[in-house]
Amino acid sequence: MKRLKAITISIGDELLSGKTLDSNNAFISQQLEMIGIPVRKKLIIGDIAQDIKDALDLAFSQADVVTLTGGLGPTHDDITKSVLCEYFDVGLKLYPEILETLKHRFVRRGFKFSESNRSQAEYPENASLLENPFGTAQGMQINYQGKHLFVMAGVPREMEIVTTGQIIPFLTELTQSSIAIIDIHSIGVPESALYELTKPVFNDYSDLKIAYLPKQGMVTIRVSFPSISPDEDQKLKNEIFTRIRDIKPKNIYGRDDELLPVLIGELLQKNNATVATAESCTGGLVASLITDISGSSEYFQTGYVTYANETKMSMLDVQEQTLIEHGAVSENTVSEMLSGTLKNSGADYAVAISGVAGPTGGSEEKPVGTVFIGVAHKEHQNIRRFQFGGNRILNKEMSAYSSLNMLRLLIGETTQ
Amino acid sequence: MKRLKAITISIGDELLSGKTLDSNNAFISQQLEMIGIPVRKKLIIGDIAQDIKDALDLAFSQADVVTLTGGLGPTHDDITKSVLCEYFDVGLKLYPEILETLKHRFVRRGFKFSESNRSQAEYPENASLLENPFGTAQGMQINYQGKHLFVMAGVPREMEIVTTGQIIPFLTELTQSSIAIIDIHSIGVPESALYELTKPVFNDYSDLKIAYLPKQGMVTIRVSFPSISPDEDQKLKNEIFTRIRDIKPKNIYGRDDELLPVLIGELLQKNNATVATAESCTGGLVASLITDISGSSEYFQTGYVTYANETKMSMLDVQEQTLIEHGAVSENTVSEMLSGTLKNSGADYAVAISGVAGPTGGSEEKPVGTVFIGVAHKEHQNIRRFQFGGNRILNKEMSAYSSLNMLRLLIGETTQ
Repeated sequence: MKRLKAITISIGDELLSGKTLDSNNAFISQQLEMIGIPVRKKLIIGDIAQDIKDALDLAFSQADVVTLTGGLGPTHDDITKSVLCEYFDVGLKLYPEILETLKHRFVRRGFKFSESNRSQAEYPENASLLENPFGTAQGMQINYQGKHLFVMAGVPREMEIVTTGQIIPFLTELTQSSIAIIDIHSIGVPESALYELTKPVFNDYSDLKIAYLPKQGMVTIRVSFPSISPDEDQKLKNEIFTRIRDIKPKNIYGRDDELLPVLIGELLQKNNATVATAESCTGGLVASLITDISGSSEYFQTGYVTYANETKMSMLDVQEQTLIEHGAVSENTVSEMLSGTLKNSGADYAVAISGVAGPTGGSEEKPVGTVFIGVAHKEHQNIRRFQFGGNRILNKEMSAYSSLNMLRLLIGETTQ
Repeated sequence: MKRLKAITISIGDELLSGKTLDSNNAFISQQLEMIGIPVRKKLIIGDIAQDIKDALDLAFSQADVVTLTGGLGPTHDDITKSVLCEYFDVGLKLYPEILETLKHRFVRRGFKFSESNRSQAEYPENASLLENPFGTAQGMQINYQGKHLFVMAGVPREMEIVTTGQIIPFLTELTQSSIAIIDIHSIGVPESALYELTKPVFNDYSDLKIAYLPKQGMVTIRVSFPSISPDEDQKLKNEIFTRIRDIKPKNIYGRDDELLPVLIGELLQKNNATVATAESCTGGLVASLITDISGSSEYFQTGYVTYANETKMSMLDVQEQTLIEHGAVSENTVSEMLSGTLKNSGADYAVAISGVAGPTGGSEEKPVGTVFIGVAHKEHQNIRRFQFGGNRILNKEMSAYSSLNMLRLLIGETTQ
């Protein structure tokens, strides 16, 4: 079976100016590589007709799969569709049902439907449409001289859903050399340490491809191997996951879609339990992550964002003496935040966080990145001191996810 | 004066696989754009001799300035220098003083000097060296047919120091023009409507380049033009910003770094005022956005995440009768949430949000995406009903940013 190769093309002046990192291409490359289609070149060009045509010439001459993102909006700088019509010498075709949907959407939001939006319902005659549920610009698939061109909007969410929902399934069938993939999620172990810890297990298998993908202080291990059969694949995935998780079960917490907010939700629902949050330095981020999950109102009712000492006292009954003696960023304060949260919210579990997010506010004893995180259930509290880094946003994210992991472990301990 | 153009080439398999974002190219683009040399194309290729030569052919045919990063290390897959020798038909030249420094460095660190490292002292005969104080691979400048090729290691620190220390000073002397850029931020106007609204103003200027960049339901307009002088540039930027903002001052809110959480913070600090938040469907996201800003503890002390009706009653004094008669997602409930927030937090301003984030929970009267957002100051309340779309996370984001924009307007009204 012939091995397919890809070239990706990104259109957009903002990518050339360096103000925007081209994360789209990275996403597409990862997706294609997972199904065994390596990307040979990436081309990034501006909204210039001749440059788009030159890029298509080059891509069709060297690759079997070509992706093209950007330039599909309704404004003057979005020329991709007209260039495609010229390139393939075809006209535009109007999709009346898309036009109706567009008009309806504008009216519902109280805007006038302007004629420049009509173009969002027109596509080159030789294109099949790829549904984009998140935006008005549909994706396109054009087959040309035995090659496959996929065209998408440059908005990441829209590009991602068209890629994973339409393009990858199509290409997976085309290549057959399908690849089985499992993502294994970890938190609190540096990438290099995770690599050393997991290497002996992975060395037991031939034909595994391993990638360590760090994000927000957490690392996902992506394991892929040539597919055998659905049953065999599943068996191998389960075996690998179990062996890797058992190396560090406190830190290696889930696979594939089992991200921490999802796992918390499942655990709480299974046990008919609820959680409430008390946040200082994370400023509401933990509550926001929990409520990113549909159905979270079943187990989350109350969150306290107690940024000021006065609010910690008034909302959570933290003692003034505790704040004076130990400071807001201390085990003692977090302990009282936990008790107050359980008492005042009536929830079964509590999460409380207090720390120095930075960049200011650090001291020798408690430098920027010092965070106390606690979880509680009835009389039982677990409180840990973490030392993160110097970046405010990253400190918030690491604190929030670490608290969810501690909550996961506590629910496990208390519901055996 | 001739306008120079650039093409950047990055070499490295890790860039093609999507595992590493190509931040080098973004850095180089920004540096070049600041001195008025736009990047016309970016090429990302693997460690393949023919692909490197093809990329050089293309770059020399379309640009005056060409940068090439990657493939300069001592290992087998680093082929850049040998390809350059073939391409320009020259030999390698040994730099004895570099070789001595290299040997000295190895000995000092306790390593044996292996012959594979000798290549780090050899460079193509037609290259001038660009000093790299952070690594062993020196940068190179090769002038060819009146064009300028710059070759650098792919390690970001090393690439950056060679770019800012050597390449930019050289090119700044070579060119004298540069480009001025202003970003103008908007919320609540679809890209197409914004395009129609702003077109007449932009048409009054020649030589403007306009791009509409949508993100999270908001659109940033990026305007660039050839630099005249620092003073003239600033004057023109101010004029354009004022004219564009005045088209829809409620929706077009800031420029460059003035994003909504930043603007809110500046306004509150200027007026010695504080804000508290009461969030239902956004689940803490508004508080989290406010506290993303360093120094936010000056003006944000308290946030209520009242996901359940019971919590709306106990924390914010919302009346049971109101919830029964009008529902949690209603103007009446949000109004009482605002009053309760001001009263119980003691803050000067309040934000309250209640809506149907989805994907479940919608009704005919209040479909998914229906959100009531309110802001208040003393006796004065502004409450609006929004109709967003079907995506839960996007609904949270649009609601949160819309509430910050309403807060911005209210502070403006109440502190004249």
